[in-house]
Amino acid sequence: VSWRSTRATGQAGEDVRQVAVIDLGSNSWRLVVYMFIPGDWWKLTDEIYETVRIGAGLAETGRLGDAAMGRGLETLAVFEHFLAAHGLGPDAVHAVATSAIRDAANGEMFLKAARAASGLNIEVISDEDEARFGYVAAINSSTMTDGIVLETGGGSIQVIEVADRHAKSLQSFPLGAVRMTEQFLPGSGPARKRDIQRLRAHVRDALSELPALAAGGDRIVGMGGAVRNLAAAAQRMTDQPDIGVQGFVITREMLADLVQTLAALPVADRGEVPGIKVGRGDIILASAIVIETVVELGGFAGIEVTEASLRDGVFIARELLADAPEPLFDDVRVAGVRNLAIQYESDLPHVEHVALLSLQMFDSLAAGGLFEPEPGERELLWAAAMLHDVGMTISYDDHHKHSYYLIVSAELPGFDPRERALIAQITRYHRKGTAKLGELAALTHAGDEDLLDRCSVILRLAEHLERGRDQSVREARLRANGHGVDLHLEAGGDLTLPRWSVERYGDGEAFQRVFGRRLLIG
Amino acid sequence: VSWRSTRATGQAGEDVRQVAVIDLGSNSWRLVVYMFIPGDWWKLTDEIYETVRIGAGLAETGRLGDAAMGRGLETLAVFEHFLAAHGLGPDAVHAVATSAIRDAANGEMFLKAARAASGLNIEVISDEDEARFGYVAAINSSTMTDGIVLETGGGSIQVIEVADRHAKSLQSFPLGAVRMTEQFLPGSGPARKRDIQRLRAHVRDALSELPALAAGGDRIVGMGGAVRNLAAAAQRMTDQPDIGVQGFVITREMLADLVQTLAALPVADRGEVPGIKVGRGDIILASAIVIETVVELGGFAGIEVTEASLRDGVFIARELLADAPEPLFDDVRVAGVRNLAIQYESDLPHVEHVALLSLQMFDSLAAGGLFEPEPGERELLWAAAMLHDVGMTISYDDHHKHSYYLIVSAELPGFDPRERALIAQITRYHRKGTAKLGELAALTHAGDEDLLDRCSVILRLAEHLERGRDQSVREARLRANGHGVDLHLEAGGDLTLPRWSVERYGDGEAFQRVFGRRLLIG
Repeated sequence: VSWRSTRATGQAGEDVRQVAVIDLGSNSWRLVVYMFIPGDWWKLTDEIYETVRIGAGLAETGRLGDAAMGRGLETLAVFEHFLAAHGLGPDAVHAVATSAIRDAANGEMFLKAARAASGLNIEVISDEDEARFGYVAAINSSTMTDGIVLETGGGSIQVIEVADRHAKSLQSFPLGAVRMTEQFLPGSGPARKRDIQRLRAHVRDALSELPALAAGGDRIVGMGGAVRNLAAAAQRMTDQPDIGVQGFVITREMLADLVQTLAALPVADRGEVPGIKVGRGDIILASAIVIETVVELGGFAGIEVTEASLRDGVFIARELLADAPEPLFDDVRVAGVRNLAIQYESDLPHVEHVALLSLQMFDSLAAGGLFEPEPGERELLWAAAMLHDVGMTISYDDHHKHSYYLIVSAELPGFDPRERALIAQITRYHRKGTAKLGELAALTHAGDEDLLDRCSVILRLAEHLERGRDQSVREARLRANGHGVDLHLEAGGDLTLPRWSVERYGDGEAFQRVFGRRLLIG
Repeated sequence: VSWRSTRATGQAGEDVRQVAVIDLGSNSWRLVVYMFIPGDWWKLTDEIYETVRIGAGLAETGRLGDAAMGRGLETLAVFEHFLAAHGLGPDAVHAVATSAIRDAANGEMFLKAARAASGLNIEVISDEDEARFGYVAAINSSTMTDGIVLETGGGSIQVIEVADRHAKSLQSFPLGAVRMTEQFLPGSGPARKRDIQRLRAHVRDALSELPALAAGGDRIVGMGGAVRNLAAAAQRMTDQPDIGVQGFVITREMLADLVQTLAALPVADRGEVPGIKVGRGDIILASAIVIETVVELGGFAGIEVTEASLRDGVFIARELLADAPEPLFDDVRVAGVRNLAIQYESDLPHVEHVALLSLQMFDSLAAGGLFEPEPGERELLWAAAMLHDVGMTISYDDHHKHSYYLIVSAELPGFDPRERALIAQITRYHRKGTAKLGELAALTHAGDEDLLDRCSVILRLAEHLERGRDQSVREARLRANGHGVDLHLEAGGDLTLPRWSVERYGDGEAFQRVFGRRLLIG
């Protein structure tokens, strides 16, 4: 029996590729490496960064300073050696420079020196392209179809109006955190009320011409280091279990608390607030105030966080989906779940069939009035079925526990922390045990314990019906029969193993506890 | 850039193979599947079992009972379908029957029926072969070179005398747990003192002729489900963090406590003792008494546990090391660490070079009298360096935390729980943070916090010197220079990236705290 890694060669036998994206931002410069098969799966595999602050002093002088340019050239030398060491040639590198370099009077001169010294083909992207890459990253990591994408950087912020998943307008405003800090929050002590009010007024003025924001809408997605840091800080302030910030909503109340907390501290202490990175402490208050003002202007209840970045947008548009008609996943959740399943080398025909059988049983139970599904429950069951085996990459023993760990550790775009917690817990109990919300309970709603119970019992049945990983059960339906529920199977192959497995391990006791009826295996 | 999985094709481009081993024991029947490249790496990827109790009643009648044979044939039908569903043909299956079937008067007759019904080529192995496979499994998962291997089964136990890693004598005794329970512990209530004493006397008598045991020795390694269950129970009784039982020593005191605890309970409650599996509850007391008596007779302080099994012995001897002159890893620790690194697709030239640089710095610091290594410290640093990147398989972000999780979750043969905890924590702190023993502190000794500090600081330096993964630093030595320590580098390539990385992230502050001197990067 020969078994080949789906990861190494892809479903169609294609080779895995590697590319680097370099983002020369106003605050930090970052080089990230992606491994991927076009249109199939992707993974970030390496990252180095330096807080270059190329935009320091720009607000005052309109020029890049000598010290900043020196730091920039040194950092480019390091990046160049990193690329060479990793065998990444010019064709496999996208280097983009944004706001600060674009806007500085001596930006073009610096770039000439930088290109000559590093041999890198650095591209200055327009403010519209900067906004567009941000939009691509955000829209491919959120289920939002209509609303606003806000991207916060050191030099500028981008505001994109999204309608039916397309960018309707893209605008850039010079309201970045380094710039706003220099202009409005110059001191080193706690921030003065007056300075904060002046900054707010400046943001309101600058954005007053933006009809998209004034029209409001349901949702706003935020991206960038500042948004991620503020989300992490909000999670800790509210004592939530740490399962990452992807999909987390920072409410207006949380933003107000964060501004108040940060403003009361001397600048040097702001990087010590749990969730805020030390290197960002001196500009985080300006970010928080800008974000808060945007959320207020648009009348949003809060801002959804995505961990995706401008770099991801460049990677998706130029590489991963370069051959697609548009750089959009058909379905963000499907793409994210499938990406994780492939990364962990799941047997795709098996997990897809477990998902199919799970949904057949779920639908037939619901159609028979045997339970009332919660909104979104069906999709969580589907995701858990697709991901139930990812832990096998660690070891067969306890692979249900490992699946839990891997799902909790993943970003899983398109799902919020509650949904990720539930998917992880459903897989955790796909083999045995009485399902519990456990340490993630604080993320869930009333009724989620029952949802978890139902989905884990159904997934357990499906897994045992597909024990041979050979799709020998073609169809499985559950139908009320007197005080019991009949399990109807349609055979696509021999049923000895599925019957034994479901009788021996399918856990009829749990079924009875959860659905109140005996399971009858026909 | 094309990147191919080392797992899928092996270092030499060989294809991955898959085989099944079926173990028809007296108590349970088990089918396990291994994925492997001969002589290179291996992994258990699937397992099904049934508590067939084929040996039930054998002690009394000398024959397999009708009900037991019926259960056996049903289970074989399931196994056969499992193999077919997984595409495992006759060449890829090793099915072995042990004590109960071997010893029963009607064993051969049952096997004929079983072979005819299932089409499986079931092989009855002699008691000497049974002992030999157990020895192969144990010696390849422990660092013991001289001592005793004890294998406990449902029908028999095997005692193997080991000298210089070779089996000097192999003996089988009909002292298995199902058999001893039927013969000496027939009731369903708490065990009677007199029955326990009779069982002890019986074991002593049976083993009195065994010079190897009387001669004693330093170490005894135990294998089998009973040993694993008793170790898990002992770990919980002593409130140790759960990091698996591989390498754990059940002391004589713990064995005495376990016998006392189990004997005081009615039979039906023994499977509820934390660590003991429900299906084993009715025979676990007999196992505990037999093991305790063997340990006493040999004058051992305790018995080391291995998670390896007879099945692993069959797999190693017949498949993984079938082409080697002897079925022995050259070095158990090296084989186990390398296996894990390959499973998680580490970049082997990189991790091996990080290990080399770590040991160069460790040795030069020790030679300069800058610290006094603990016994075994050097090997733990080596193992941590080899495994520091396994978490990259999960994600680049937080890969140090993921490496910790993966190492704690692995069996890692040849290391005990304290050593596995330290290796995991050294990798946990190979990027940043102040090293802490954390929740695994209860497994460690006095002085281990300092060991962890030293090793994580050295590993961090080595990792940053090898940031390009290109072996551009050929040699790194640390030598005292006044109140500081010079880092001497010998270049094998350009040093721009390693120097930047070690200055930016090497954490000179931690070095000074741990070694009491400033780090000077030359």
